[in-house]
Amino acid sequence: MKVAEKRLRQLGNRMLQELKRGNSPYIEIPVRALGNVYFDSERRLLQLGEKSGRRYFLNLAHAKKFMQTLLVASYCLELIQKGKHASLRDVYYALKRNLPNSKEVTFQDQSESNPVIEDLEVSLNLLREELHISADRKGYLIGNIVLRERVVDETFEIDASQLGTGGWGIPSNVEEIEFLDIQADYVLVIETGAMFERLAEERFWKKNNCLMVATKGQPSRGTRRLIHRLYYEANLPVYVFTDGDPYGWYIYSVIKQGSINLAYLSEKLGTPDAKFLGVTMSDVDKYNLHGQVHKLKEGDIKRAKELKDYPWFKNEEWQREINLMLEKKIRIEQQAFSSKSLEYVAEVYLPEKIEKEDFLP
Amino acid sequence: MKVAEKRLRQLGNRMLQELKRGNSPYIEIPVRALGNVYFDSERRLLQLGEKSGRRYFLNLAHAKKFMQTLLVASYCLELIQKGKHASLRDVYYALKRNLPNSKEVTFQDQSESNPVIEDLEVSLNLLREELHISADRKGYLIGNIVLRERVVDETFEIDASQLGTGGWGIPSNVEEIEFLDIQADYVLVIETGAMFERLAEERFWKKNNCLMVATKGQPSRGTRRLIHRLYYEANLPVYVFTDGDPYGWYIYSVIKQGSINLAYLSEKLGTPDAKFLGVTMSDVDKYNLHGQVHKLKEGDIKRAKELKDYPWFKNEEWQREINLMLEKKIRIEQQAFSSKSLEYVAEVYLPEKIEKEDFLP
Repeated sequence: MKVAEKRLRQLGNRMLQELKRGNSPYIEIPVRALGNVYFDSERRLLQLGEKSGRRYFLNLAHAKKFMQTLLVASYCLELIQKGKHASLRDVYYALKRNLPNSKEVTFQDQSESNPVIEDLEVSLNLLREELHISADRKGYLIGNIVLRERVVDETFEIDASQLGTGGWGIPSNVEEIEFLDIQADYVLVIETGAMFERLAEERFWKKNNCLMVATKGQPSRGTRRLIHRLYYEANLPVYVFTDGDPYGWYIYSVIKQGSINLAYLSEKLGTPDAKFLGVTMSDVDKYNLHGQVHKLKEGDIKRAKELKDYPWFKNEEWQREINLMLEKKIRIEQQAFSSKSLEYVAEVYLPEKIEKEDFLP
Repeated sequence: MKVAEKRLRQLGNRMLQELKRGNSPYIEIPVRALGNVYFDSERRLLQLGEKSGRRYFLNLAHAKKFMQTLLVASYCLELIQKGKHASLRDVYYALKRNLPNSKEVTFQDQSESNPVIEDLEVSLNLLREELHISADRKGYLIGNIVLRERVVDETFEIDASQLGTGGWGIPSNVEEIEFLDIQADYVLVIETGAMFERLAEERFWKKNNCLMVATKGQPSRGTRRLIHRLYYEANLPVYVFTDGDPYGWYIYSVIKQGSINLAYLSEKLGTPDAKFLGVTMSDVDKYNLHGQVHKLKEGDIKRAKELKDYPWFKNEEWQREINLMLEKKIRIEQQAFSSKSLEYVAEVYLPEKIEKEDFLP
């Protein structure tokens, strides 16, 4: 039996026993608000604190949410048993109905069902994906890796070295995926789709024996989970390559230690040993890119100051970079190297950085 | 020689000849503004009108843009000769520089280089992709199709039936792709990534012998071009499945007859014979989905009224649908059918619609 199924059954059984004993059953739900999020410097992950709340069946203020939580839980159990997956929207429609003899509906709209799903995740310490609920997909994979994906009662073998410049679309859910064969020395995570495509055209992954993952901006959960699994299961070092701006650096930080919103999932999505390859402010000098920088806007400056205060950026190297950014008030894009040549990133910048292990922590 | 290379060389040669004759060379550029866009009811495509302008070398108001246009043109020629592709951002950085003995730069920022690239497209009647410039990528493909992609000096054979639920990430550029083998009766185009994934889990493409394409919202140029080519080169009927809201219906309209912004590309990106499968307002009655609809917001109502006035929606069937939407002030999502069962779309709705050819024009 899958862990998720076991925990859902335990939840149901506990409710039943409480009822039989004549008690008001409750669900314990850790608080997900900012005030209960902290940076665990030992594990180097954003984590939830100790605060939690109880949602009681026999409490007028709790009863509706209690009902919603159990509805979602029982639907997830059904999904797991059928081996199928539903999107957030599917869950909403599957469970939305009028309560008999009343004007009440189970869920008014998706903004009521989505947080309940998060409640269940954090309460059972399970990924939404393990509950068979899928979310947005984004991101691509390319390289010498063969994956096996189980799709209900069928399996597919996916060879990500045979996909041209397109790559494999990373599904929202990578729980049903096994790594069959990997011939690669590291994972290169790339922020923009355009850079991914450029490097795919150069067949960088082939010439440098790596896997390439595109996040297309802030990575989806599926992409973060895949990176995490490639590090922990396949022992591949992870190097992150973003624009040299506060937004790109925050993408790195989310891949590495998780996000504030999803702090309760950091240990399943985060990769604390990921390294930052670039683009750094120091690169502007090192590669003489002074003509290719852009002025920071007000919003960028504000964001950079926020980054500076995050505990996980409080190390010498990052403080130096952020200070440089704030001093010079500039940002630099991944494509700035094209001023030298179209192939510069693939043939000089990346190999040089990786060879010298010129990374930020 | 590729068409694009030929046209670029012709452009260069013409400039040279004019100069030798002592004339001020010019480039003729059709006007892309809304006032020069019309719906060609014969070809059923949005098209550019006759208006065009000339950009002269020896005209103070034109000189800078003239220089920019030729800079981009010569860079494109270089790309084509090398068999490589650059992103919009790459082009900007590759061509940005200080003019000697002056404070002038070739391009201030990307907002100066992007429109020049569009000028060149429309002037030479070539896709940006044919000029080897790539743009944003989005969209996925899955099904019994084997593609061959040429990547510089290497070719890849991509079997889109071996990709699990992930599918193939449609690259920004599908010009280097050939269809080697297709076993499918039609193309199903799907608006949301979540619905694509749901149908992939049901292996709808396999059970119903079709190709599935996800647009993830408004389709990228690459995705539109791929749909176009599947229709014209592989003779596959195209059925479009979106949410039943003005935004979804406009996605259909863009796939079918092109967009106002890119009217000059309609004949290369549009698929006028595409059919609309759903979700329609009539489906709400037919499938008894009254409990699953959402109220239209002000913006939706405004958008629906705009759709109603577009010439290409001026047919009985669509006017009826749009009127129904405006009367009832409702919209409906693709996932609404999950209220019946998770499999309803895959097992009942889509097969029934396709069997009965219950489409909108």
